[in-house]
Amino acid sequence: MRYGFEEIEMPILERYELFAQKSGEELSEQLYNFLDKSGRRLCLRAETTPIIARIYVENERSLVKPLKWFCISRLFRYETPQKGRLREFFQLNIDILGGGGNHATAEVIACGIDICRDFGLTSKDSVMLINNRKLMEGLVQQITTVNAIAIFGVIDKRSKLSPEEFQNALLEIGTSKQETERIQAIADTRGKPSAILEQLEKTEMNELAKEGLEELRETCEILDNYGVLDYCLVDLSIVRGLAYYVGVVFEAFDTRGKNRSILGGGDYTTMYGGKPAPAVGFGFGDTVIGVILEERALYPSFESELDVFVTTVEPSVKPTAYQILSRLRSLGVKADIDLGSRKFRKQLQQADRRGAKFAVIIGPKDVEEKVVTIKNLQSGEQETVPQDQLASFKWT
Amino acid sequence: MRYGFEEIEMPILERYELFAQKSGEELSEQLYNFLDKSGRRLCLRAETTPIIARIYVENERSLVKPLKWFCISRLFRYETPQKGRLREFFQLNIDILGGGGNHATAEVIACGIDICRDFGLTSKDSVMLINNRKLMEGLVQQITTVNAIAIFGVIDKRSKLSPEEFQNALLEIGTSKQETERIQAIADTRGKPSAILEQLEKTEMNELAKEGLEELRETCEILDNYGVLDYCLVDLSIVRGLAYYVGVVFEAFDTRGKNRSILGGGDYTTMYGGKPAPAVGFGFGDTVIGVILEERALYPSFESELDVFVTTVEPSVKPTAYQILSRLRSLGVKADIDLGSRKFRKQLQQADRRGAKFAVIIGPKDVEEKVVTIKNLQSGEQETVPQDQLASFKWT
Repeated sequence: MRYGFEEIEMPILERYELFAQKSGEELSEQLYNFLDKSGRRLCLRAETTPIIARIYVENERSLVKPLKWFCISRLFRYETPQKGRLREFFQLNIDILGGGGNHATAEVIACGIDICRDFGLTSKDSVMLINNRKLMEGLVQQITTVNAIAIFGVIDKRSKLSPEEFQNALLEIGTSKQETERIQAIADTRGKPSAILEQLEKTEMNELAKEGLEELRETCEILDNYGVLDYCLVDLSIVRGLAYYVGVVFEAFDTRGKNRSILGGGDYTTMYGGKPAPAVGFGFGDTVIGVILEERALYPSFESELDVFVTTVEPSVKPTAYQILSRLRSLGVKADIDLGSRKFRKQLQQADRRGAKFAVIIGPKDVEEKVVTIKNLQSGEQETVPQDQLASFKWT
Repeated sequence: MRYGFEEIEMPILERYELFAQKSGEELSEQLYNFLDKSGRRLCLRAETTPIIARIYVENERSLVKPLKWFCISRLFRYETPQKGRLREFFQLNIDILGGGGNHATAEVIACGIDICRDFGLTSKDSVMLINNRKLMEGLVQQITTVNAIAIFGVIDKRSKLSPEEFQNALLEIGTSKQETERIQAIADTRGKPSAILEQLEKTEMNELAKEGLEELRETCEILDNYGVLDYCLVDLSIVRGLAYYVGVVFEAFDTRGKNRSILGGGDYTTMYGGKPAPAVGFGFGDTVIGVILEERALYPSFESELDVFVTTVEPSVKPTAYQILSRLRSLGVKADIDLGSRKFRKQLQQADRRGAKFAVIIGPKDVEEKVVTIKNLQSGEQETVPQDQLASFKWT
């Protein structure tokens, strides 16, 4: 990867406890767990963060920090399949572990924006919403004595609720009517980083909120240096459902607004065997981006491209055809041949259908003269090339 | 792939029955199965063949045959972990479905040999052992009335048994002493294809054996055209444990002989929902090849190669450094930066340790003059390049 992240592989099965303890409540209900033949409770991985933490802590001494890791993994969640949510899906995870502070956070966010850009999503198509958990916790503490995590749980579900449902959900966990309104006003705060940061800097706040605001400010400043701030908004309703986030949090969305988040992540503390370490990362699932690319007709084509299809004018030349095929492949050329007993004309059709750039044509006379005829399937041009000079032809 | 195979993806969980019915006895004992939350018995895939059969039959009408598919998948077998065997492993599968006869078989074997060659294994390091199940079944029928599949089961385990144990195992399933000796003589038959085929052609045999011999002969002839017959031996002890093979079967081994097979496969009939289709393929696991490459010091290096490491002479130039970093990455250059607050000298050390080809050096004067200093970390040469001409520098 051009960002200098290194790929790591990890097991697909883990002990149930690794996920049950560390993840948020919603996720722990969705764990795909079972008893194995020896009676241990195992779990198909539902996210990679706890596994990365385990690998990091187990190997910490031998690693040069900060670490930049990525992995593309199959994940499993036992929930009702629906648009943008499947039980088995792929997720790209990007993590920086063991240091880097706001620089690491900005690097990870810039990388996420760049991936959206590589998929063809411009700053008009997608938006990166950024917030900070310390800032939010500080602001919430100034308003109410109700536990901030409980309030975050409600804010995290806000996009699925009507304003009334949102208010009722807050009232239910114990905030007063006035507190509810003030929380709602915070959750409604969204805009260009410069404007929102300026507004927040004028607000009176406690030390925790100030600390969070400073993290958010520096992260946005570095993102500006990366040249990606036009993709970003500060949005105080982004709090992330999972329990382990501690600083900046972010989610990217389709600007049309009707899909779930494309990617989500933030600063967190890895914890394994009681050893904490600073980290930042995101998960980028294949399901939502698939729906968005489909809707916007940006879905990439996966047609295989063949360089050459080797054809035989009559069956007697097949031995030579296999020799040519084998030589082409050893030159690194993507080459194929009809494995059946199709007639020459059908073989040429097959060459076309497989998208080959060239057809190599071998007839009895070619065998005799130790040459092949090469037909450019786009231009229709043909030329004759000696069999021992295949390496100098421009195939690709 | 230069052989023109197309990648397919498949689920990691399947219904237990899909594997339990189709696979051999040994494998069905090793299935990693469990009850899911709704009480269905599911199974972590232990092999891909039954899944490929299901996908093939479900989509047969819309596909142009023969199909050339490959997949690299995680597989699971609940057995005792040991050298060359793990409970979770990766396997490359190559299959041609829906036709091609001996041409498809030879194509698949040639592909397997080429992969070994690409790993650095010459015909002195590895050998492809080839046989035919019809030939073997015919020969066994001429010797004994004991079920051929039962005899194949014993022959398949021969490499793990002493000659006495092998004889006893045959006697146990009901062959007489004389029959046992004749079966042993067959299983001991191994040599260059030309020699063994000549010897077999002189042997009197029934129609089934003759048919198998003809398949074997033609396959070897095509392999000779591919130029890979020096990798091949005919070995009548290769029968493959799984139940679905019907024609040519093959296994590749390290010539030092102490490791399990590198890859194994053959002609088989896919079966799903009562619909059969001809197929040929092999499985190539990561575990055995890993051991062999380690032993022969051929294990490839996975060091990441960075093109550029961006360094800053003092913290004040960081904004420019991030702009340069971002521009380089957008040019497709693999570039990284120190995310901490290391001193300039330490950053250069980091560039070296990360294997970067170049260090981009940015100091206050460079910022002023809108240039960067590019240091070739191998030659030590330095040159100054305007910041707006980064695209024309040869980075990779």
